[in-house]
Amino acid sequence: MISEGVEWILAPISAMISIGVGLLLFRYVTKKDAGNRRMQEIAQAIKEGADAFLKREFTILAYFVAVMATLIAVLINPFMGPAYIFGSACSALAGFFGMEVALRANVRTANASRKGLNSSFPIAFRGGAVMGLSVVGFAVLGISLIYALTRDPEMVLGFSFGASAMALFAKAGGGIYTKTADIGADLVGKVELGIPEDDPRNPAVIADNVGDNVGDVAGMGSDLFDSYVASIVAVMILGESLGYKWMNIPLVFAGLGIISSIIGVAIVRVGKSGNPGKALNMGTYITCILFSSLTFTATIIFGYNIEVWGAAMVGLISGVIIGVTTDYFTSIDRAPAKKTAESSQTGAAINIITGFSYGLISVLPSLLGIAAASFIAWTLAGVYGVGMSALGMLSIVGMIIAGDAYGPIVDNAKGIAEQSGLHEEVIDVCDKLDAAGNTAKAITKGFAIGAAGLTVLALLASFREIVKDITGEYVNFALMNPLVLSGVLIGITVPGLFSAMVMLGVGRNAFRMIEEVRRQFREIPGLKEGVEGVKPDYASCVDIATKGALMELLPASVVAIIITVAVGFIGGIRALGGYLGGTILSGLLFALLMANSGGLWDNAKKYIEAGAYGGKGSETHKAAVIGDTVGDPFKDTAGPSLNTLITVISLVASVFAVLFVKYNLVEYLT
Amino acid sequence: MISEGVEWILAPISAMISIGVGLLLFRYVTKKDAGNRRMQEIAQAIKEGADAFLKREFTILAYFVAVMATLIAVLINPFMGPAYIFGSACSALAGFFGMEVALRANVRTANASRKGLNSSFPIAFRGGAVMGLSVVGFAVLGISLIYALTRDPEMVLGFSFGASAMALFAKAGGGIYTKTADIGADLVGKVELGIPEDDPRNPAVIADNVGDNVGDVAGMGSDLFDSYVASIVAVMILGESLGYKWMNIPLVFAGLGIISSIIGVAIVRVGKSGNPGKALNMGTYITCILFSSLTFTATIIFGYNIEVWGAAMVGLISGVIIGVTTDYFTSIDRAPAKKTAESSQTGAAINIITGFSYGLISVLPSLLGIAAASFIAWTLAGVYGVGMSALGMLSIVGMIIAGDAYGPIVDNAKGIAEQSGLHEEVIDVCDKLDAAGNTAKAITKGFAIGAAGLTVLALLASFREIVKDITGEYVNFALMNPLVLSGVLIGITVPGLFSAMVMLGVGRNAFRMIEEVRRQFREIPGLKEGVEGVKPDYASCVDIATKGALMELLPASVVAIIITVAVGFIGGIRALGGYLGGTILSGLLFALLMANSGGLWDNAKKYIEAGAYGGKGSETHKAAVIGDTVGDPFKDTAGPSLNTLITVISLVASVFAVLFVKYNLVEYLT
Repeated sequence: MISEGVEWILAPISAMISIGVGLLLFRYVTKKDAGNRRMQEIAQAIKEGADAFLKREFTILAYFVAVMATLIAVLINPFMGPAYIFGSACSALAGFFGMEVALRANVRTANASRKGLNSSFPIAFRGGAVMGLSVVGFAVLGISLIYALTRDPEMVLGFSFGASAMALFAKAGGGIYTKTADIGADLVGKVELGIPEDDPRNPAVIADNVGDNVGDVAGMGSDLFDSYVASIVAVMILGESLGYKWMNIPLVFAGLGIISSIIGVAIVRVGKSGNPGKALNMGTYITCILFSSLTFTATIIFGYNIEVWGAAMVGLISGVIIGVTTDYFTSIDRAPAKKTAESSQTGAAINIITGFSYGLISVLPSLLGIAAASFIAWTLAGVYGVGMSALGMLSIVGMIIAGDAYGPIVDNAKGIAEQSGLHEEVIDVCDKLDAAGNTAKAITKGFAIGAAGLTVLALLASFREIVKDITGEYVNFALMNPLVLSGVLIGITVPGLFSAMVMLGVGRNAFRMIEEVRRQFREIPGLKEGVEGVKPDYASCVDIATKGALMELLPASVVAIIITVAVGFIGGIRALGGYLGGTILSGLLFALLMANSGGLWDNAKKYIEAGAYGGKGSETHKAAVIGDTVGDPFKDTAGPSLNTLITVISLVASVFAVLFVKYNLVEYLT
Repeated sequence: MISEGVEWILAPISAMISIGVGLLLFRYVTKKDAGNRRMQEIAQAIKEGADAFLKREFTILAYFVAVMATLIAVLINPFMGPAYIFGSACSALAGFFGMEVALRANVRTANASRKGLNSSFPIAFRGGAVMGLSVVGFAVLGISLIYALTRDPEMVLGFSFGASAMALFAKAGGGIYTKTADIGADLVGKVELGIPEDDPRNPAVIADNVGDNVGDVAGMGSDLFDSYVASIVAVMILGESLGYKWMNIPLVFAGLGIISSIIGVAIVRVGKSGNPGKALNMGTYITCILFSSLTFTATIIFGYNIEVWGAAMVGLISGVIIGVTTDYFTSIDRAPAKKTAESSQTGAAINIITGFSYGLISVLPSLLGIAAASFIAWTLAGVYGVGMSALGMLSIVGMIIAGDAYGPIVDNAKGIAEQSGLHEEVIDVCDKLDAAGNTAKAITKGFAIGAAGLTVLALLASFREIVKDITGEYVNFALMNPLVLSGVLIGITVPGLFSAMVMLGVGRNAFRMIEEVRRQFREIPGLKEGVEGVKPDYASCVDIATKGALMELLPASVVAIIITVAVGFIGGIRALGGYLGGTILSGLLFALLMANSGGLWDNAKKYIEAGAYGGKGSETHKAAVIGDTVGDPFKDTAGPSLNTLITVISLVASVFAVLFVKYNLVEYLT
């Protein structure tokens, strides 16, 4: 028997350190002053709304997970059922933990902003870092535990599948929630009644603030938890037939990535320059450099192949490149956003066509990056290398999430500052913090999409590996095989179908919200006029958004899973492989298109608001607002859910592969 | 040597009959009364504009074709160069012929409408039939001639490649032209000045009418010429290794399809019911039945395999099914259009999200149809069967085009009737004719897209066949091969890139047109007021649309071709095969999405105009108009050009395959 190696113990140790540091930062945040009574009241209302959403989400999820786990335990493997439950529980725990701190960091950031940027930035950033560190901590700890118990990566697959179920609920459900509240608050408040954004008279304003937390904090955290776990498990499965060493590598690299992220988080400082955007980016770059050095050293010490390290580096570098090009297509000071703003002069239709067109073009550099990364990684270390490149991209995810979760915290802080009537200067500080969040978000979003792309390619490869374990034969999913081809043709339609269902869901749910907001303004005397002591019924709006989001999400998810299972039972493994390829391809395409054109419309609008082409209130601005509203469900609901969707579909295929091999209609008929 | 069979002689004989009948119908149309002086003046202005466009288009095309033909003759095969020229010439001839009769049929239809529907319908329909019969006639005659001379289907491929060059210019160029003129005329005329559509004071009104002819008549004819030829040549290449009989089958089936179409055209009559839509559909169904019976008889007589006949029938039936489902998603009286209209109440943004979402959903049934058709055809007769199913779908294209070209003729007739101030009743008759055209168009559009899908799959297979002839080895384009995968990832971005470039081109060109129309209203005294004798400068608008369309088209086409060639020279045959697969998949996806959501927005607007939700002029209507304007370049420029684009890319790959096998970077480096 080959030596199993013990170096992978680095992974659980790093994970525990990560959780420990997360707890310290949690304490750091909660010890800060939460401001005056008005501020605490608002923060409390947001917290109650977010907790209500999580509670309901977790309840539905619990039923869903129980059914799935039973199915898995009965049909596939008795141990895989508990692993599935454990995966969704770990993801839920990380999300819960991260959101709870965000709900405390927001009001404290607002309060500290009174003393300036240098006081408030660390609270917001460290609040975000708790989410980052708990995601990687719980993910790696969970994986390590299952691996230690079973030494079987396919059991880890069950864990990953559980995490993906949680991600689908949190990301797509949160995405529907946040846009329901956003559109509802804006359309009645800003457009119909002309009251400012974040005005406390608006009954949907708390739901809107809650939305930032459940969508952008908890949802984003679960999404990256999911991709991160999937990338690790994919590499483990690809390494299984090569021996223990190859299953240990991803764990070691993940552990070193955690260490790098912890150090990166620790050294982020705004310094004298007072530029928080620069501080965030510097943190990311330092984490990258640390990760490269640490993994290189580990490769030498543990005698890993240097090509495998190379593959991870390819992933890391292409993640940065994809981030930078994404930034070009969405930034407020670049040609695409400016031209889209300019085109708004001829009306909303041309604004939309222009933004959509640039979105279509923006897909090219990212996919070229993924194509190049996968090809080079493959040349270096075969299909295992592709998995490692995904893992390389995702290794620094602790730091990435920290920067990402920082965004909604400062966004919330700004909202609280405005609603509680803090001084103009304080709001200015919050604005600066907010702008830095947007810049950081563009780069991290590129990372997330690129990583998802490489991860699902690795999952496709590991699907083939699993099929080989069952049938003893490598299937190559040749496009010129009629079953594969039919699968691909069906697969490419599914991401669009899912997007359409959730976007239509947002529309329906926003309609309900609008009706409720209108009702309150009509029926509550003195509300519109802002009479002292008159308060809207925030809770009913929170409730509509919560119920609606989960109600609209379920059909879309169930349809996607049913189609996947149907393709497997009808066409068998070849059709399913083609189908996976198809969903991956069009999933990436639409995810990039929707994220980038949505961001572009947003910034084109902001460019006009900054004074161009007549500025705020002009006809050009109105046209740009329509584009921005189209972009909202693109970039915040459908687009980001697609990463999760393709991971879920890939995992459904992998977990149930053994059934599809045994029972499928085409084989039965021929 | 195996008997070559002479039955294929049926093909050129049918083709000559088709051209002959086309000439008779041409005479029938021209003999009709062209109406009063004012009507003839308008028709003359449209004709001059259309001829000017064609002349300029043919001039640029001539240079392009000369360069390409030389390259092909020098690099590939000296005979293939002339075949390429011949292909583009035949396609140009068919387009020219069809457009000339359309330009005469429009005014004569308008004039005959004074005597009622029964007098005007035959002129419009037979005018359209000339295009249908000349397309199939010139296509099959050209193919037969080259086949008779060389007996080598790869030379026929050169012919097909030439036809596709023409199609790209005519379809995409015409598409940019028609939307430039449409948006220019509407934005200044209807929106800024509030004058009615088709008002003779509007300088862009003639350009708008010209657009219908160059885009919807000439462009559509070239597009289907291209698909039709490609489907025949793909089957011939797939049959080459099986023997002469297998190369004859597609020719015989095409010939019988022509005969069926001629009979179908001959028996279309409105009858007493006075329902032109029913008459058009009846013609299509009768042609289908005739084709099935004739080809079944031929299969028995000539001893062909019955499975091959079955494959052709699968294509025919799935074409009808795709047409019917497309109809559901775009029809004015179905749920998607009604719900999109309803959603317009909450503004333009929700209208756009709703229409786009239904467009995404509409892709599923069509691709399911193509997947099922290709799978069944493959099971029946292998990859040859897939080619036959495409051919089966396209076999009745003579009839399809007749119904399609009827649309713009009656549209033009309506415009002429309005501009020359004919009686309200006459315009009513034209309206009825027009509505029938829209219904027929939905079904024929489904056919065209379905056929394009199957054709390019057959082209992918024939590409593999050509590669096998060169290398002696069958390549399967396995998704799990890194080169193939990189190719697919790049390929899926190209249709979006092309769409974006032409849509941005429409935006830029419309901007120029708007400036010119504004200038004329400003500088020509009495124009706005409609002073007797004051005329706008129609020609300058026609000129802007013409120049701009060709100028904006070239970069998009050149970029698409360069990327294709670059992938071939860098990645070799495997990367190129994956790339083809990728462009086909995303090309189909976007073609269906854009065509259907565009049609849906159009009909949602019309539904409101018919009186729903406040009717014309309401805020809801304004929101729906924005959606319709977004849909215009979707459905009339980018969407329909994608069929042509993927055919062109497939043919570039096939024709230059021999070079990519010899010279490619990846092989050189490894």
